[in-house]
Amino acid sequence: MQIDLNADLGESFGSWKKGHDSALLQIVTSANIACGFHAGDPEIMARTCADCKTNGVNVGAHPGYRDLAGFGRREIAGYGDHALQCEAIYQIGALQAIASTFGLTVRHVKFHGAAGNMSSRDQGLAMTLFEAVQRLDPNLRIVVIAATAQAAAARTLGITALQEIFADRAYNDDGTLVGRSDRQAMVCDPATCAENMLRAVESGTIVSVNQNPISINPDTICVHGDTPEAISIADAVRARLEGAGISVKPF
Amino acid sequence: MQIDLNADLGESFGSWKKGHDSALLQIVTSANIACGFHAGDPEIMARTCADCKTNGVNVGAHPGYRDLAGFGRREIAGYGDHALQCEAIYQIGALQAIASTFGLTVRHVKFHGAAGNMSSRDQGLAMTLFEAVQRLDPNLRIVVIAATAQAAAARTLGITALQEIFADRAYNDDGTLVGRSDRQAMVCDPATCAENMLRAVESGTIVSVNQNPISINPDTICVHGDTPEAISIADAVRARLEGAGISVKPF
Amino acid sequence: MQIDLNADLGESFGSWKKGHDSALLQIVTSANIACGFHAGDPEIMARTCADCKTNGVNVGAHPGYRDLAGFGRREIAGYGDHALQCEAIYQIGALQAIASTFGLTVRHVKFHGAAGNMSSRDQGLAMTLFEAVQRLDPNLRIVVIAATAQAAAARTLGITALQEIFADRAYNDDGTLVGRSDRQAMVCDPATCAENMLRAVESGTIVSVNQNPISINPDTICVHGDTPEAISIADAVRARLEGAGISVKPF
Amino acid sequence: MQIDLNADLGESFGSWKKGHDSALLQIVTSANIACGFHAGDPEIMARTCADCKTNGVNVGAHPGYRDLAGFGRREIAGYGDHALQCEAIYQIGALQAIASTFGLTVRHVKFHGAAGNMSSRDQGLAMTLFEAVQRLDPNLRIVVIAATAQAAAARTLGITALQEIFADRAYNDDGTLVGRSDRQAMVCDPATCAENMLRAVESGTIVSVNQNPISINPDTICVHGDTPEAISIADAVRARLEGAGISVKPF
Repeated sequence: MQIDLNADLGESFGSWKKGHDSALLQIVTSANIACGFHAGDPEIMARTCADCKTNGVNVGAHPGYRDLAGFGRREIAGYGDHALQCEAIYQIGALQAIASTFGLTVRHVKFHGAAGNMSSRDQGLAMTLFEAVQRLDPNLRIVVIAATAQAAAARTLGITALQEIFADRAYNDDGTLVGRSDRQAMVCDPATCAENMLRAVESGTIVSVNQNPISINPDTICVHGDTPEAISIADAVRARLEGAGISVKPF
Repeated sequence: MQIDLNADLGESFGSWKKGHDSALLQIVTSANIACGFHAGDPEIMARTCADCKTNGVNVGAHPGYRDLAGFGRREIAGYGDHALQCEAIYQIGALQAIASTFGLTVRHVKFHGAAGNMSSRDQGLAMTLFEAVQRLDPNLRIVVIAATAQAAAARTLGITALQEIFADRAYNDDGTLVGRSDRQAMVCDPATCAENMLRAVESGTIVSVNQNPISINPDTICVHGDTPEAISIADAVRARLEGAGISVKPF
Repeated sequence: MQIDLNADLGESFGSWKKGHDSALLQIVTSANIACGFHAGDPEIMARTCADCKTNGVNVGAHPGYRDLAGFGRREIAGYGDHALQCEAIYQIGALQAIASTFGLTVRHVKFHGAAGNMSSRDQGLAMTLFEAVQRLDPNLRIVVIAATAQAAAARTLGITALQEIFADRAYNDDGTLVGRSDRQAMVCDPATCAENMLRAVESGTIVSVNQNPISINPDTICVHGDTPEAISIADAVRARLEGAGISVKPF
Repeated sequence: MQIDLNADLGESFGSWKKGHDSALLQIVTSANIACGFHAGDPEIMARTCADCKTNGVNVGAHPGYRDLAGFGRREIAGYGDHALQCEAIYQIGALQAIASTFGLTVRHVKFHGAAGNMSSRDQGLAMTLFEAVQRLDPNLRIVVIAATAQAAAARTLGITALQEIFADRAYNDDGTLVGRSDRQAMVCDPATCAENMLRAVESGTIVSVNQNPISINPDTICVHGDTPEAISIADAVRARLEGAGISVKPF
């Protein structure tokens, strides 16, 4: 039995630092690296690739909307399908080039922020984005938020996507995430997070906020690094999984 | 006997148009495509690649400094060698990815604006930039301004660079370009431009503003497209070369 | 009887040109000047102010969303009211400062692109934006698209806004514009545009696509300058109004 | 006897945090607020103005080159005098507008990073920048680095500038700062910094690295906030000055 742990990394920009990359690189097995449109820049991408290599962490692209000021979190309508596809290919290609200078290959793609959120609600958008990834390189694995329009889009396109669950988020009965505005949205206790993730990996079941089981077979668990507390959660999840004999390694 | 004609293309940005790309694509054999840092954006890069494919024009990268407001023409000091190299790799990689979705391969790299000008005076800078290109992909050909520090850098690195001359510029005795502030800087008469280029290709000699011969064996001739007049020059150069039996085709 | 003619000006950026500013400055009486977030930059803003002064044209601010790549036309959700207000104040203040160095005062504000479109549908958004303008300077006049949520927001806030109609657009029975995707959206014949505008000014009535009268008392007519044809329309409108004895001058 | 303490504030951008603004706002009497071109954004500018008001701290503008990726520290040549002036006026005006919504007036201007460094070596550049400030508003005080081309430019223009010294930097015999590449550039011991600043204020004399006295009558002392240690220095300087009976208050 095995599972991958992923985190969003390389989210600094210019002289501004963000995240706890060095701590997370000790814990995760896959990195989603910002590609310069919502965060990151060429030099930070290179440094993050170098750190992934040192730590044996899988390199993935984390493309986002062209919105540095909003960190890619503002939902943008009227983008145009072609523009979206070209921007995805541009960003992934830029990371592929940088990774290649370290002898690394970009293995997966996970969409960031508003691009991720909008495409987890809108299957047409998800298909637009995923087709761009496929057109660039069919060997790129796509990470989808399990039980959303992203997962449906991958199925429709015949793509074997990587199903992702979140260590620190509560789930509705239908498998979607409880919205951040809801008080129950976040799961903050490291032991609870760890227990939930162990059960999900072992049984293919997540328990919703209403204590109902949801059938989700995860390929990768997302751990966050925005706050010092998040590192404790990530640590606890990894320790609990390994303590139960589950191999934590790249997909 | 053969020669390549190149032009800077894809220099629009967002809703702003620039250049006479469709006219130039009928004339040149190689395109230097802006990569989004000083001009161009992912969608424009894709459109330009598509147009190159249609016209059988060679695709090359035209990376520049990160300076949209200044069109990459402002000379920036204190950039840091590593930042410069990462930005070059990022831009070229982004274009490689976009080109690949059209079944095209990026064949060459030519540095834009201030990056080109500064590296034609500063051999250390030229070596920094060219090493980045080589590290990304040793098959990428590098276009250097003949008889400058760029050419010296390529020699020092053991790179067989493509020597470039300019159809519409006057030359000093030492092979450098007459500065734009000088009244003699530009050669504006299409017939004169064409005659100069024919002689350069046939004899490997350019005549300086002082009527002295300079020994330069060009691999590629740069024609500009900023003004409607520039198209006449480009047209005249191509017609004159072909009329004299020289094959105008990609290097 | 009098009317103001306004146009969006100063929409170039860096080395990219856009619009037919010099032609329009001969025709209009008020300019809506881009403030650098979706188009324009400090130098272009200064040049446009200088040209307005030369031509006796009223200076107004045309703030937009922070989106150069999308020319401020992409609808952005999740911006945050405070961010929107601060961005509006920032842009208007920047123009006020530049205008002041020419001895000019910014007289009005008109929101651009997606900011204009979204706030003409969403009264809450319109109130957010207009309150920011009022907080900066209650003497700033606000241009609203007549018969939309913008007009309602101004009424609710007790602001005497300037009601704007469009010379080249068709109207629905409820006073809203026919959507651009509809074939009847644009009125392209200069004589028809001119006739419609004359009737609107003289009678306070616009005729809808269904030939029904809509009661709108315009304070200002927007003429566009994106295409050479648009200049003909602007010319025809001004000539027809003046020919009928209507004074075309700043509000 | 009195002195002003100033610090660069509001240097965050979007979701990226930078600096220890809340700690510094307890210590300094004047704030140099980033205006969005090298750091800061409209919302951060507003928040910083609000915090200045709460703490009774003087509001000043800290304009920089248009270079977010380089934090305004990259020296840019070929900018064009007019562009520089317009960008300065734009940035200061934007802050004036935001400050005005809090009932605050921008009192001074201090140029950031490369704009500051280049103009402290190049009197022509300093005059270009200072003339723009004067043209916008002759009541704006200009902070100059004492004993540099900035000070000379102010004298030539007949401006009574505010002379600035640095709490944590070593000085050459001619009054210029020891370059950052020199091991002696920084003064890191809080007690030493405090003692130096006390002597400078009391005697109008700074002691150079070679133990020679330099005659400088400071109007304001710059304290930095980039590192936690810098806060200790700022604290020590203020405590030592006040302990000696010097009034620390806005100029």
